[in-house]
Amino acid sequence: MVLERVKQLAQQVTNTVAPPHPFDPLSALEIETAVSLLRSQHGKLYYNAVTLFEPPKAQMLKWLTDPDHVQKPNRIADIVAITTEGKVYDGHVDLTEHKVIKWEHTPGVQPLITMEDLQVVEHVARKDPGVIEQCGLIGIPPSDMHKVYCDPWTIGYDERFGNSVRLQQALMYYRPIVDDSQYTYPLDFCPIYDSNLQKIVHIDVPKVRRPINKAPPNNYTVESIKDEGGFRTDLKPINITQPEGVSFTVKNRIIEWQNWSVHIGFNYREGIVLNNITYFDKAENKVRPIFYRLSLAEMVVPYGNPEHPHHRKHAFDLGEYGGGYMTNSLALGCDCKGSIHYMDFDFVNRAGAAQTIKNAICIHEEDNGILFKHTDFRDDSVIVTRARKLLISHIFTAANYEYCVYWIFHQDGTVQLEIKLTGILNTYAMNPGEDTLGWGTEVYPGVNAHNHQHLFCMRIDPNIDGPDNTIFQVDATQGPGEVGSAENYYGNAFYAKKTKYTTPTEAMADYNGNTSRTWDLSNENKLHPYSKKPVSYKLVSREVPALLPKEGSLVWKRAGFSRHAVHVTPYADSQIHPAGRHVPQTSGEPSRGIPEWIASNPSAKIDNADVVLWHTFGLTHFPAPEDFPVMPAEPMTVLLRPRNFFSRNPALDVPPSYARTPSQVAAGKSGGSVQADKTSTLV
Amino acid sequence: MVLERVKQLAQQVTNTVAPPHPFDPLSALEIETAVSLLRSQHGKLYYNAVTLFEPPKAQMLKWLTDPDHVQKPNRIADIVAITTEGKVYDGHVDLTEHKVIKWEHTPGVQPLITMEDLQVVEHVARKDPGVIEQCGLIGIPPSDMHKVYCDPWTIGYDERFGNSVRLQQALMYYRPIVDDSQYTYPLDFCPIYDSNLQKIVHIDVPKVRRPINKAPPNNYTVESIKDEGGFRTDLKPINITQPEGVSFTVKNRIIEWQNWSVHIGFNYREGIVLNNITYFDKAENKVRPIFYRLSLAEMVVPYGNPEHPHHRKHAFDLGEYGGGYMTNSLALGCDCKGSIHYMDFDFVNRAGAAQTIKNAICIHEEDNGILFKHTDFRDDSVIVTRARKLLISHIFTAANYEYCVYWIFHQDGTVQLEIKLTGILNTYAMNPGEDTLGWGTEVYPGVNAHNHQHLFCMRIDPNIDGPDNTIFQVDATQGPGEVGSAENYYGNAFYAKKTKYTTPTEAMADYNGNTSRTWDLSNENKLHPYSKKPVSYKLVSREVPALLPKEGSLVWKRAGFSRHAVHVTPYADSQIHPAGRHVPQTSGEPSRGIPEWIASNPSAKIDNADVVLWHTFGLTHFPAPEDFPVMPAEPMTVLLRPRNFFSRNPALDVPPSYARTPSQVAAGKSGGSVQADKTSTLV
Repeated sequence: MVLERVKQLAQQVTNTVAPPHPFDPLSALEIETAVSLLRSQHGKLYYNAVTLFEPPKAQMLKWLTDPDHVQKPNRIADIVAITTEGKVYDGHVDLTEHKVIKWEHTPGVQPLITMEDLQVVEHVARKDPGVIEQCGLIGIPPSDMHKVYCDPWTIGYDERFGNSVRLQQALMYYRPIVDDSQYTYPLDFCPIYDSNLQKIVHIDVPKVRRPINKAPPNNYTVESIKDEGGFRTDLKPINITQPEGVSFTVKNRIIEWQNWSVHIGFNYREGIVLNNITYFDKAENKVRPIFYRLSLAEMVVPYGNPEHPHHRKHAFDLGEYGGGYMTNSLALGCDCKGSIHYMDFDFVNRAGAAQTIKNAICIHEEDNGILFKHTDFRDDSVIVTRARKLLISHIFTAANYEYCVYWIFHQDGTVQLEIKLTGILNTYAMNPGEDTLGWGTEVYPGVNAHNHQHLFCMRIDPNIDGPDNTIFQVDATQGPGEVGSAENYYGNAFYAKKTKYTTPTEAMADYNGNTSRTWDLSNENKLHPYSKKPVSYKLVSREVPALLPKEGSLVWKRAGFSRHAVHVTPYADSQIHPAGRHVPQTSGEPSRGIPEWIASNPSAKIDNADVVLWHTFGLTHFPAPEDFPVMPAEPMTVLLRPRNFFSRNPALDVPPSYARTPSQVAAGKSGGSVQADKTSTLV
Repeated sequence: MVLERVKQLAQQVTNTVAPPHPFDPLSALEIETAVSLLRSQHGKLYYNAVTLFEPPKAQMLKWLTDPDHVQKPNRIADIVAITTEGKVYDGHVDLTEHKVIKWEHTPGVQPLITMEDLQVVEHVARKDPGVIEQCGLIGIPPSDMHKVYCDPWTIGYDERFGNSVRLQQALMYYRPIVDDSQYTYPLDFCPIYDSNLQKIVHIDVPKVRRPINKAPPNNYTVESIKDEGGFRTDLKPINITQPEGVSFTVKNRIIEWQNWSVHIGFNYREGIVLNNITYFDKAENKVRPIFYRLSLAEMVVPYGNPEHPHHRKHAFDLGEYGGGYMTNSLALGCDCKGSIHYMDFDFVNRAGAAQTIKNAICIHEEDNGILFKHTDFRDDSVIVTRARKLLISHIFTAANYEYCVYWIFHQDGTVQLEIKLTGILNTYAMNPGEDTLGWGTEVYPGVNAHNHQHLFCMRIDPNIDGPDNTIFQVDATQGPGEVGSAENYYGNAFYAKKTKYTTPTEAMADYNGNTSRTWDLSNENKLHPYSKKPVSYKLVSREVPALLPKEGSLVWKRAGFSRHAVHVTPYADSQIHPAGRHVPQTSGEPSRGIPEWIASNPSAKIDNADVVLWHTFGLTHFPAPEDFPVMPAEPMTVLLRPRNFFSRNPALDVPPSYARTPSQVAAGKSGGSVQADKTSTLV
């Protein structure tokens, strides 16, 4: 009967509008098909992840070349599940063949903490006698336990417990009334929760106790702002309308816009995954591959307070919680303006049913100011052309913080990753007159917001006119020869010093702001017809702080990807997650992910080879009161810019707003006003 | 009779709508009044500049405090003029008292090159026998001299000629037909032009000759794009409308928007000058001063080819030509969209008449995405608030390049300077098969675009709750104690290391990307009530390359401001121009501007004092074919962010797009949707 149900579901899958593209995320039906198959063979399981197992690249590249004749890769589900006894299994279910093709017990790991795992902790904590006792000690009576909240975090790694027990640390808060911001009222102790036992197993209590904050609430709700004098009334609407519709087309999950073509995937870990990014080059009259896959693959947020147990605060928000799982359902007219195309996200819940985040991905266009302009000073002949950009975005909430992730495509061939940080600071209690010792800032009376870094790891799988690419480090460098020498008489010589990376060991590179360091992702097999330089995309990234936790520290060990701004590894299908597949409670001994891959073959050939570039960037945040009680969005950007890739500016055929040539000026003609905006007005 | 005319003009000035604010640029009438007074005393002069002599700061601060009772500073015109014999005079005319109060011959200097100075060179060059001869040698017959063009640049400094003769170097080009881009056809020789004699006095001819480029034109005109297949047709309009008008008010030149108040000035050198930038702090219920004056004060564009005479290419576009003089007249619906407020710019021409650039300054608002957002993962209670920004911008054309300068005010208290670089690469001829030697890129056959830097100097005159401010360097730094030590057991400690600058010598500081170096502009006399840190604005700037011309090089000597990312000097009324008042043909011996000011008192007190911070930032440009024949705009940003200045996020009272509290969620209420955008649509 179970098999019957599987076949039914499979039929339903077949009957859906379009057969899935091999890069498509699993549909709800595919998820439930996989679960049904597993259930039929292995009984009851708690599902942690049921996600697309992406086809092997070699197979996919063949299929992409000739999809009509090459056999389509099978649909395979990648499963993480926990048995009722707490054992972790990794498995693969072939959805095309309807069979479980891998089912392996993986000891000594903890899969990520799902939203369901998180939700339950607070309710358990409120009833725990130890928690109730600790609350009493800092001034919260047992009758007020419903006012106690907790943001459960993964425990990071705590050597007292290791990784055989599935743990969360409960960062505790209090709300005088239900609508008050709890981050004004952090509690000073930290319970540890066992997810399998569903109980508090330990409480970390600080040496110095900090009674519950007595300061008045610090809220941002509509009601509180009204109470304080109301909203400002002098903002007039700005309406953004697209009366003729959008300039992109979406076929299933492939979007085409301004010569770009991109497959938009999404998974529970990385959120948005962009595949097979190509550009139709008019000059060459062909579609040119640029990136095989782009994603935000991992991140870590180390906090800088050395006092126990704050060192445990170093969330891997993607690997430990899942950027996809935490994704917001977006609302029209709020998160983005204009004409919006949304995509949903289907995922598995603990019980094995498919659930959906509606409007998980937002796709829209924005005006982007001037694309290019030039005026001839002789006669005021001019061209001015406005830019448009395409944004593919999602927003995820990691407990207190929000990350707004925008993948942006530009008409000039640039791909931009912009991340806006907003949401609320993680806070801890402090006593009146207590010194932060420089590890944090008192952002409100009794509220200590600790120093922290947000370090993101972007996974760049280049396909610059083909998969065999080479990475060069590029440094702006003074020329040889002292001032007065024959070769550099006036001392002004400078050039782009290029260093080819030939092995992963050589490619472990830091940022250098002084030389405006960038990295070229090049295809040495194809030289630009004019410049004779290899066709390239340049990684331009300026927010690249060093990892501040020291060498050998817990964070340094666990988040190996963050030790350098750049790592380059030879492509391997299995190497998707920079800190490893199962991140929670890794000890960092050995370091998972990138360090182990590199250690396995530190001299691997990475020039003129299929490679992946891992780029760690981000910022160091020393909180200030202006970030509280909710933080104004702080943006940061990474650019991938075509250099020596196109024969010339690829956006010359974007209709200008205004243009007139010298001969038109001379003839008194107004010139070729092609597409000036008619809706702008004078004040 | 002349005096009569002066009085008439003065009366006209008095009769205009509003008496000028002391920070207002000179009006056309004021310019002509000043010229009339000078003419009456000194006869015929060639005018280089007639601009506002800004009131002494001490006097101005008094007047700003109590404008109804303190005497208003006199209106004074600052004059640069050249006599018919070529002598340079600096003068002041008191427009309030109607008298010339300073008139001094300044030997050994050359004032900047005006647009009129530039315009004439091409016409002289075309008729010059030497130029005609050189053209002939590279394949341009005398009959085609009307197809020869030149971009005249200041000569920089050429030791063969010194600075007693007023010179320009003529970068030569050719246009097969009048509408062709000349930058595809650079000529290989460089005439030198004497502005006073109005003739070519020398021609620099390279050792290796490079005949005129035979490649086909590379154009971006409407006609050429049509010939190549036409414009793309898949861009649908995005309309931006403000049906209820704008959210700002402009009274004369003071703009008020979202608690900000700013006086918008403009001069021939710096372009936009922002004065008396204040913020009405609702929490403190008072207007708080933040900056006394902000401007882009100087820039230098050194080129990296050591071959003579390319070392001379290092334009100081502000000090040698004037960012105001080169400003574009903007067109509605082209340069900016929405509801636009323009301001004109009046300046003096060579003959002494006032001329006007219509629509020199553009003021408008833009939607700016998410201002802040937070979702509670427990119940999806949420707030999402959209951001608005105010842009005050101008665009100037420096021969081939354009600089789009946007001063941007944000609701969260941030001031942003964004500069977009567009326009056309400076190009030089190359022979088929010639090697660029790494000093440039062949962006098109026969076209060598040389490496260069754009280094801007931003003048920041802080007034953070008063004029006595202190500058701190802030570096993200690892805490003391090795991993395993008692003080830093887990090795995660880090903090913001602050270094106070007490003298200009200490304050000559470079950027450090590794420590995410920033600078705090602080008022040590006022501590934040919660954080106990001094109220501050933080300079956040990430595009800060080192000056690449070597120590002791011509550029290093002439552009002293560019040696360091930061200089701090005690405030002095006369110190406005980082490379000196008269920049063309300075030898750099001694270095003018910042180096001489610092040398005059290297140990001056700059902590808790009235200081100016000079910030040099920019980028190094290694050209690529994608930048040609016209360059897609490349933006760069500097931020001034409030830190420990406001008691909390100052934008909490911006109406949210959507908000609902936990109690509203629990009650099944939709929540306080306050100002959701109604014009957005689903695709």
